[in-house]
Amino acid sequence: MIDNITDKKEIVVGVDIGGTNTVIGIVDLSNNILLENSFKTYPEKGVDNFFERLTIIIKEAYNKLEDKYVLTSIGLAAPGANYIKGTIESSVNLKWGNVNISKMMKKYFDIPVAILNDADAAAVGEYSLGVAQKMKNFIVLTLGTGLGSGIFVDGHLMNGENGLAGELGHIIIEQEGRECTCGRNGCLETYVSAAGIKRSVSYFLSVLNLESELKNISFNELTSKKVSELALNKDPVALKVFNYTGEILGKALANIVTIFNPEAIILFGGLADADELLLNPTTFYFEKNLLNFYKGKVRILKSGLQNGKAAVYGACEFAKESMVKNMINV
Amino acid sequence: MIDNITDKKEIVVGVDIGGTNTVIGIVDLSNNILLENSFKTYPEKGVDNFFERLTIIIKEAYNKLEDKYVLTSIGLAAPGANYIKGTIESSVNLKWGNVNISKMMKKYFDIPVAILNDADAAAVGEYSLGVAQKMKNFIVLTLGTGLGSGIFVDGHLMNGENGLAGELGHIIIEQEGRECTCGRNGCLETYVSAAGIKRSVSYFLSVLNLESELKNISFNELTSKKVSELALNKDPVALKVFNYTGEILGKALANIVTIFNPEAIILFGGLADADELLLNPTTFYFEKNLLNFYKGKVRILKSGLQNGKAAVYGACEFAKESMVKNMINV
Repeated sequence: MIDNITDKKEIVVGVDIGGTNTVIGIVDLSNNILLENSFKTYPEKGVDNFFERLTIIIKEAYNKLEDKYVLTSIGLAAPGANYIKGTIESSVNLKWGNVNISKMMKKYFDIPVAILNDADAAAVGEYSLGVAQKMKNFIVLTLGTGLGSGIFVDGHLMNGENGLAGELGHIIIEQEGRECTCGRNGCLETYVSAAGIKRSVSYFLSVLNLESELKNISFNELTSKKVSELALNKDPVALKVFNYTGEILGKALANIVTIFNPEAIILFGGLADADELLLNPTTFYFEKNLLNFYKGKVRILKSGLQNGKAAVYGACEFAKESMVKNMINV
Repeated sequence: MIDNITDKKEIVVGVDIGGTNTVIGIVDLSNNILLENSFKTYPEKGVDNFFERLTIIIKEAYNKLEDKYVLTSIGLAAPGANYIKGTIESSVNLKWGNVNISKMMKKYFDIPVAILNDADAAAVGEYSLGVAQKMKNFIVLTLGTGLGSGIFVDGHLMNGENGLAGELGHIIIEQEGRECTCGRNGCLETYVSAAGIKRSVSYFLSVLNLESELKNISFNELTSKKVSELALNKDPVALKVFNYTGEILGKALANIVTIFNPEAIILFGGLADADELLLNPTTFYFEKNLLNFYKGKVRILKSGLQNGKAAVYGACEFAKESMVKNMINV
């Protein structure tokens, strides 16, 4: 696959493995997007099944392109991914346990494979192609089933000592708060995430006594998308839920600004797309709780990449960098 | 003063301006300590008075040294200092309002003067001469009248967009909590600091009904040092206060680890020296609240520099760097 590399135009594949959907994108080294595709992840079918399907889809996509291209590296973004080890570790949404993806992919491809956390990938994507271009200090929050984050400090992705920095979803914001998948209580993502929205619906059905369409839907049937539809239709409980979620998120972000002094905070993912339902209360409580110096100075933005593609293009970018490193190492 | 620079050995002065004491140190470019001195800050006498005395003390100290040295730059560490602007801004402990120190010092010295936040200086000092040598990711907390912090990410001091990153003392840990000098409520430093210790004494005198020597001391007479002496003598309220402070600090540090994935956290300043009174409960609640991955892996250390000299030597280090930059700019 890497024959005649000099005659051909180099391309990379980026993959964003989500709990529900997996998205792939193919770009050339100038960030021209050649192809996009997505398919169901079906994590419950197991990790081997997933990687077999992923391989077929990548090879099919690659074969669709003209002969003048050569695939030189693959970037894989996934929740719980560790770029240092090349693994996915105990991702709650994928439920695959500890998986060495790097090794797994080498069965199918003889090119470099770079692994990174999906939220870090989103941050790299916003930096290279989205709203964070030219920014040096910013934070990307991915609001999906859980809450992930990728943080840029002085123009570089913050990794920490073990590649685990920036787990803002697991800041404890409420001692003795909601049980979290991490085994502790009160983590931010138990409130601010698609799953958190559903739990907040249950909470407000317990404390309020209002008419609501939400009383007709079971917890398991409910989706955060449904809650946002109902909120847009002025359902009082659904509105309360979004206001509450925004209050918690806004206060948490005010603390994050005190810690990082960023230029902007970027919201990305399904929940962030929920019209202005989440953004409005978030911005209100954010401004209210900021240190005086920061009031009116730190922007909360939505992702600059359409259809939540930040992580895919971040994975592409990471694949390119990793390819360069690999070539230097040779 | 900078004549014959090539014949003489270059030295720098570091100054740590505290609310109570100001410490100066003179080092050569190989970090050999040539002289140390300290004097009362007396911030209430005003900023002009302070800088006049500081100048005399620096010049006297310099004159005491042999003729073979030449002073090439000065580093000034102070609470609320902004290295980008060269100013001290609204430091609550100094009460000088906004002061352009850089300009002020230029009246007296015709050499580069570098300004930095005292907690950042402590972090630089630990990195260059203390316990954080060779560490890339660590956090220094200065526990004095207030709570400051300096954070290293991937081997570099984190500055943020405006040089204000890392104000961990102003993370809100308790909504509707204690009033803070910043105008908000519930900031970490209203609990974890010398001033916080005194407020916690009042709190426990309100909720507990125990015999305590602390009932004989007014709020204004009380010092955190006195509370630690009483705790060492098993005063039950004083012990409760340190346990409570350590609980709040330990929980906050567990969140900080989730955010930064650091190798270690270093405690520096008067409160940190309070025997193991603070360190023991802090470590206990820290470990209890960490994400599983981190348990037993992140050290909480005390400053590696004697008598709280980290900030002075950090200021020296910063002065050296600033001198180099200055020479490059010329």
